[in-house]
Amino acid sequence: MTNFNIDHNRTDRLGFPEVIYGQGKQTGDLVAILEEYRSTDQNALVTKLESGKADVLKTHFPESFYDAVAGVFMLKEVPLQENGAKVGILTAGSSDIAVANEVFYTLRFMGIAAENIRDIGVAGVHRLLDRVEDLKTYDVLIVIAGFEGALPTVVGGLLPQPIIAVPAAVGYGVAEGGNTALNAMLSSCANGITVVNINNGYGAAMAALRILNLKNQV
Amino acid sequence: MTNFNIDHNRTDRLGFPEVIYGQGKQTGDLVAILEEYRSTDQNALVTKLESGKADVLKTHFPESFYDAVAGVFMLKEVPLQENGAKVGILTAGSSDIAVANEVFYTLRFMGIAAENIRDIGVAGVHRLLDRVEDLKTYDVLIVIAGFEGALPTVVGGLLPQPIIAVPAAVGYGVAEGGNTALNAMLSSCANGITVVNINNGYGAAMAALRILNLKNQV
Amino acid sequence: MTNFNIDHNRTDRLGFPEVIYGQGKQTGDLVAILEEYRSTDQNALVTKLESGKADVLKTHFPESFYDAVAGVFMLKEVPLQENGAKVGILTAGSSDIAVANEVFYTLRFMGIAAENIRDIGVAGVHRLLDRVEDLKTYDVLIVIAGFEGALPTVVGGLLPQPIIAVPAAVGYGVAEGGNTALNAMLSSCANGITVVNINNGYGAAMAALRILNLKNQV
Amino acid sequence: MTNFNIDHNRTDRLGFPEVIYGQGKQTGDLVAILEEYRSTDQNALVTKLESGKADVLKTHFPESFYDAVAGVFMLKEVPLQENGAKVGILTAGSSDIAVANEVFYTLRFMGIAAENIRDIGVAGVHRLLDRVEDLKTYDVLIVIAGFEGALPTVVGGLLPQPIIAVPAAVGYGVAEGGNTALNAMLSSCANGITVVNINNGYGAAMAALRILNLKNQV
Amino acid sequence: MTNFNIDHNRTDRLGFPEVIYGQGKQTGDLVAILEEYRSTDQNALVTKLESGKADVLKTHFPESFYDAVAGVFMLKEVPLQENGAKVGILTAGSSDIAVANEVFYTLRFMGIAAENIRDIGVAGVHRLLDRVEDLKTYDVLIVIAGFEGALPTVVGGLLPQPIIAVPAAVGYGVAEGGNTALNAMLSSCANGITVVNINNGYGAAMAALRILNLKNQV
Amino acid sequence: MTNFNIDHNRTDRLGFPEVIYGQGKQTGDLVAILEEYRSTDQNALVTKLESGKADVLKTHFPESFYDAVAGVFMLKEVPLQENGAKVGILTAGSSDIAVANEVFYTLRFMGIAAENIRDIGVAGVHRLLDRVEDLKTYDVLIVIAGFEGALPTVVGGLLPQPIIAVPAAVGYGVAEGGNTALNAMLSSCANGITVVNINNGYGAAMAALRILNLKNQV
Amino acid sequence: MTNFNIDHNRTDRLGFPEVIYGQGKQTGDLVAILEEYRSTDQNALVTKLESGKADVLKTHFPESFYDAVAGVFMLKEVPLQENGAKVGILTAGSSDIAVANEVFYTLRFMGIAAENIRDIGVAGVHRLLDRVEDLKTYDVLIVIAGFEGALPTVVGGLLPQPIIAVPAAVGYGVAEGGNTALNAMLSSCANGITVVNINNGYGAAMAALRILNLKNQV
Amino acid sequence: MTNFNIDHNRTDRLGFPEVIYGQGKQTGDLVAILEEYRSTDQNALVTKLESGKADVLKTHFPESFYDAVAGVFMLKEVPLQENGAKVGILTAGSSDIAVANEVFYTLRFMGIAAENIRDIGVAGVHRLLDRVEDLKTYDVLIVIAGFEGALPTVVGGLLPQPIIAVPAAVGYGVAEGGNTALNAMLSSCANGITVVNINNGYGAAMAALRILNLKNQV
Repeated sequence: MTNFNIDHNRTDRLGFPEVIYGQGKQTGDLVAILEEYRSTDQNALVTKLESGKADVLKTHFPESFYDAVAGVFMLKEVPLQENGAKVGILTAGSSDIAVANEVFYTLRFMGIAAENIRDIGVAGVHRLLDRVEDLKTYDVLIVIAGFEGALPTVVGGLLPQPIIAVPAAVGYGVAEGGNTALNAMLSSCANGITVVNINNGYGAAMAALRILNLKNQV
Repeated sequence: MTNFNIDHNRTDRLGFPEVIYGQGKQTGDLVAILEEYRSTDQNALVTKLESGKADVLKTHFPESFYDAVAGVFMLKEVPLQENGAKVGILTAGSSDIAVANEVFYTLRFMGIAAENIRDIGVAGVHRLLDRVEDLKTYDVLIVIAGFEGALPTVVGGLLPQPIIAVPAAVGYGVAEGGNTALNAMLSSCANGITVVNINNGYGAAMAALRILNLKNQV
Repeated sequence: MTNFNIDHNRTDRLGFPEVIYGQGKQTGDLVAILEEYRSTDQNALVTKLESGKADVLKTHFPESFYDAVAGVFMLKEVPLQENGAKVGILTAGSSDIAVANEVFYTLRFMGIAAENIRDIGVAGVHRLLDRVEDLKTYDVLIVIAGFEGALPTVVGGLLPQPIIAVPAAVGYGVAEGGNTALNAMLSSCANGITVVNINNGYGAAMAALRILNLKNQV
Repeated sequence: MTNFNIDHNRTDRLGFPEVIYGQGKQTGDLVAILEEYRSTDQNALVTKLESGKADVLKTHFPESFYDAVAGVFMLKEVPLQENGAKVGILTAGSSDIAVANEVFYTLRFMGIAAENIRDIGVAGVHRLLDRVEDLKTYDVLIVIAGFEGALPTVVGGLLPQPIIAVPAAVGYGVAEGGNTALNAMLSSCANGITVVNINNGYGAAMAALRILNLKNQV
Repeated sequence: MTNFNIDHNRTDRLGFPEVIYGQGKQTGDLVAILEEYRSTDQNALVTKLESGKADVLKTHFPESFYDAVAGVFMLKEVPLQENGAKVGILTAGSSDIAVANEVFYTLRFMGIAAENIRDIGVAGVHRLLDRVEDLKTYDVLIVIAGFEGALPTVVGGLLPQPIIAVPAAVGYGVAEGGNTALNAMLSSCANGITVVNINNGYGAAMAALRILNLKNQV
Repeated sequence: MTNFNIDHNRTDRLGFPEVIYGQGKQTGDLVAILEEYRSTDQNALVTKLESGKADVLKTHFPESFYDAVAGVFMLKEVPLQENGAKVGILTAGSSDIAVANEVFYTLRFMGIAAENIRDIGVAGVHRLLDRVEDLKTYDVLIVIAGFEGALPTVVGGLLPQPIIAVPAAVGYGVAEGGNTALNAMLSSCANGITVVNINNGYGAAMAALRILNLKNQV
Repeated sequence: MTNFNIDHNRTDRLGFPEVIYGQGKQTGDLVAILEEYRSTDQNALVTKLESGKADVLKTHFPESFYDAVAGVFMLKEVPLQENGAKVGILTAGSSDIAVANEVFYTLRFMGIAAENIRDIGVAGVHRLLDRVEDLKTYDVLIVIAGFEGALPTVVGGLLPQPIIAVPAAVGYGVAEGGNTALNAMLSSCANGITVVNINNGYGAAMAALRILNLKNQV
Repeated sequence: MTNFNIDHNRTDRLGFPEVIYGQGKQTGDLVAILEEYRSTDQNALVTKLESGKADVLKTHFPESFYDAVAGVFMLKEVPLQENGAKVGILTAGSSDIAVANEVFYTLRFMGIAAENIRDIGVAGVHRLLDRVEDLKTYDVLIVIAGFEGALPTVVGGLLPQPIIAVPAAVGYGVAEGGNTALNAMLSSCANGITVVNINNGYGAAMAALRILNLKNQV
């Protein structure tokens, strides 16, 4: 028994387990928390985990998985699903890949298939237009952008699905830190775009999960 | 024929028509745009419309509807649906009613039933806990809060549905203008909460519509 | 002779005359300055002029012209030029018309023809794509947008001319005041977009004039 | 004698001694100041002390105590009191432990017993509700939270004691640096919550001391 | 019966009743809420109430009290207590009187005597020093300041009681809106000062009430 | 074939090729992208490239060029043109050299000659006045400044060409990060100055290219 | 006797009397304060006084003086001094006249002659250069500017006197409210410029008085 | 001869030489500039110089002086003057010593004697009051403070000299970076305080020099 107060009945309440925020936590605390999960044969997900701490955790939990680009750690790797992807993850460029991977692996941990669709930035809008028919096949679109954050607006004017916009802390000058992209997404003249915090790929994945759970209830 | 460039095929593309943003538009321009809609026997929605302009429009379009609290105008009133509400609109207090009404009437314009659930602020959390079972019956929850914006976080920890948080420009000092509530909602430690712009009840309703359209596809 | 220190040789130095910023100036001071211009048979332009002051000036200078939407005043009206427009003024919606008119009348004062192209917002990107060939005929494009300010980015990815982006103080919540549009334009992933201050239609027109003067030198 | 101008009569005036702010001070200056305290057989507290400087100080003052998580240094360790804790320190998660420890050790230095109550975040509000009766036994509650900073609001609606809220610089995106938590606490719809600076565990402890001194006067 | 969800057991939980935030509420809603209080013979407090609404309420509730400077309304006036003041309200100048009155009348509503101590600004620090002995007799000090907000810091270095600092939205330029005073108070180099939101005289009074309730338990 | 979605027809559309933003990209991704360019015998430009990554790229592409001050990388060096410089790059001091070099090498990559004019800061305005005749010979002026960002304003009052202002992140205190220079340039009382993002030498060069392409069409 | 706590010995301590900040004060309080000054035959200065309040005060104190542009009120008018002006007040345009007048009348109240020098903005720098010899004759220069706030920097590079920069809340977009001018002045690359708050003509005059008092001691 | 454009006649114009801003300059550039000064037998001052660069410069110019705390470098050390100090440098604590030293050494370079007066923070205001008579003997007071920045306000209410306030980037949370201290100083309710940029000890020294030069003219 540890002195951590884990929210074990969250799955009953919400349909998904508690997830561990890695940033700022002591490595020793993380090991103790994860031991508790392993002892009851549960999987666990850690987000925003620095690679130094991940090295210690990987030694301790050899069966674990870690994606260094996104800083996502799982106690046990979850296999890729066979069925077609339900969530499309759209990015403007390869600088947004860290956020895209956080979405991807959180969804995989939750048992949802997703696909990354890259390099469709609005400065060459035909690349997006060429893929509109294909993009209609996803249930939910998660759209990631840094800099001026215009991609969700253009996507929202072309496609009817639920769209979750994720600002990425990619850019310099007034774009530094992602606030410009965040504010642009919140101000979008496209209809019904919702937004999560800067770099919050995890949150976008969880919002998609809530939507997919609603659809699957039917 | 006017010289406005209305996006008439939006319903085909997205499943909902273009909506008119009223703030800052000249009354004469609004009349001209609405005439075009009426001439083709379409309904139209105007948001953020000041009451002075609404008075002119109501004279011009006697069959129209206007809610002065929310500043929402419809060319033709849409009757209330018989079936049970699909969207629950949660507010902490009666100061948030303008935003709640913008959600309510936008949904009605789109043909979706909704219900306002008031006075469940987090400073008396038992009022929310007493209603948890009832709140599980809605497909989507739209949670409005000003001041510290904590209500979506507590709701998100108790209920599994898609949750759209709307910051309201209600409060003074550091809460003035709604930025504190916005940032608190974006920073929520609850999982999978999404957020729209301050006072953007219209956007929250449209995001709910995208989700309900997905569900209804099945 | 007044006690104003007018920069009379500006035309020699820069190729255009001094222009008067109307906001915050006393009406009496404005009359005195304009009298000095009229006494030497020069035309004069006043920007950001409130309508109350304009009423006084129009009584004093009956031959003058005033556009109430933009707040632009000219001592003598300048006739429309016959030749085709050199500058295209693009706006996303009719809320941006005040800024568009400030561009239009400043250019007319300077002897440059321009054309307003309205309602080509990025939430319906096909309206812009339909006009790309037409837009190639302008020498300079001035692109005005409020809210998320994405229009200059999409235009900049489609068209090769000099593009001057003008953020408009149109929007609410985080878009209020125009800072979100400004920052989005400065952060644009399109190449070679330049930006002027919020609502600075006058400045955009003058920047276009500098470019056209360069072209006309050849 | 050093050339430092220590405020030696502060205890007479205020009921507590001067405390040394460690950040940015030269190690040599710190040694000189602490020597002066030791020479008059007084204990001394240093806050926000980096571990590199602490190593030097520990060598110089072998009887001293240093908590590396909080960066708190005492010239002489103060033993734990026998009597029950007077101050409850509530945190939402283990990322807030640095601030909690600064509260804890400052109170111990001042002779006040405290207890850390962890992992009662508002995203699982039942964990807090389960402890309400227990929490009523403390004289003062110090509530620490990062991210959206909602914990003090919920606590303030459930418990009648003096409540001091401490925003923690824990979070990313708009929560980075702790300003969102700070503003949410200042905007709280709960009644009579007071707030200290971000990460200012020391200040919260001193405010509790002022309150306990008032109570003990009776 | 109304459709308001009043938190009637708050007094049992917290030792004080729910209070009504007047700003932004419809006058009709306020009348309905107050009728419910009167029907059960309870007193009620409304804060931040504009004078236009107060005129309507005074007609409806002739026995009520309204202070126009602070915008504070009570259903029934509460008589001044005989015993000596427990709370000292310190202000730097007569511009802060609106906030001071909100503190004063909230305390009176809660049954606590208070006294206003004016014109002791730090630019003439001797006026404060002359009153130090007198100020020691209060249980709690509430210190209000606009502009640079330095008064709580100087008071906090001279006096040992619990000190609650209230930033006032008094000043211009960088002091406009009260943020400079707020940040200065949060950054105070004096020990154990706590802070409430800008202009939040009500909150300061409630924090004092929590402290006095603790003292009175003994 | 790689899985990158390069915008190969950009030169046809806009008159210049796509350019690669280096910051935040994985070195492996950069190598893959550049291989694709080399395989089709095209040159490529990478901006904001850290020197560590540049070392790897230089090993991989021995014929490449890298300027460490600006962080600019070209797959193949472009020789200096013989004809006179068309663009003047003005800086206030040697701290702005990184931005000036990004302008210079981007222009060289695009085939445009430029010249750096240094140390003409406004605190010694005669140094600028001495060069006015010389500066009239450039087609376009790019003016870089940090700190208070006043140089473009003074240049804009003296010279008639198109002027592109680039704020540099040079300065401390309120000037830190370049926002003060940016805002000063946007607020310039000189006429027709346009502005790009902080440190965006690349964008300024591309804007100059758009202008020069217009001129060369004639 | 009033219940105001006027700092009567300020002249002994500092060499100048207390001055009354008019904004936000009740008219009745102002009358009472001024009565106390008149009863002891002292003059008094009120700054930032709205014209409505001034009308009441002028009726009450018929010998008083009020400048409506600056909002400055004096109990007794102070005659203009014969001797040459000691302080030069420089402004870029007639929009800054309110601030310039606050400087001018504060100095006159304190017995110091000053002169306004207008229309020497940096966008026509020759107008300033033409006056450099004349400007050398003042003891202190107070330089007022809105928009980009560059004037003090250019003046500081040309003239050796003490220079006090005053940002004016003149401008729109990012210049609105005067923060851009303030930050530009604080960031000035000219040496030894000091700055006061936005629109604080009063403070600039008082700083000049401190300097002139030092000079006059000799 | 180098390609630097040094402002050699600044001493004739302003009474003091050009000074070199070290931050961000390449070491090679600094050596070249300093060589030019040494070759004409002039002394030179470099501010904000990192210690790594200083090591190189000290090797190159063995007769030079460097203060590592302030980052101030002089080509030749200037001996201490015999006569009494003219400038008093007041600091609240030893964390402000870096700024105080930049003032001190800049003044020494300019030939002005100064004295550091430490540890007179406003949280123990008697330490300042004890020194008022002594502080009257300085011509100019430079007052440095971080955190809430209250010291210049209290000094300004007690002493009649010219007072230059310098905000120090000392503090955490809302005080981080020095903006709170800056804004508090600009908002000071004391009369005639002027302010320089955060950490700008150099600028404060130069402003004092301008004042002393005025006094010495007499």
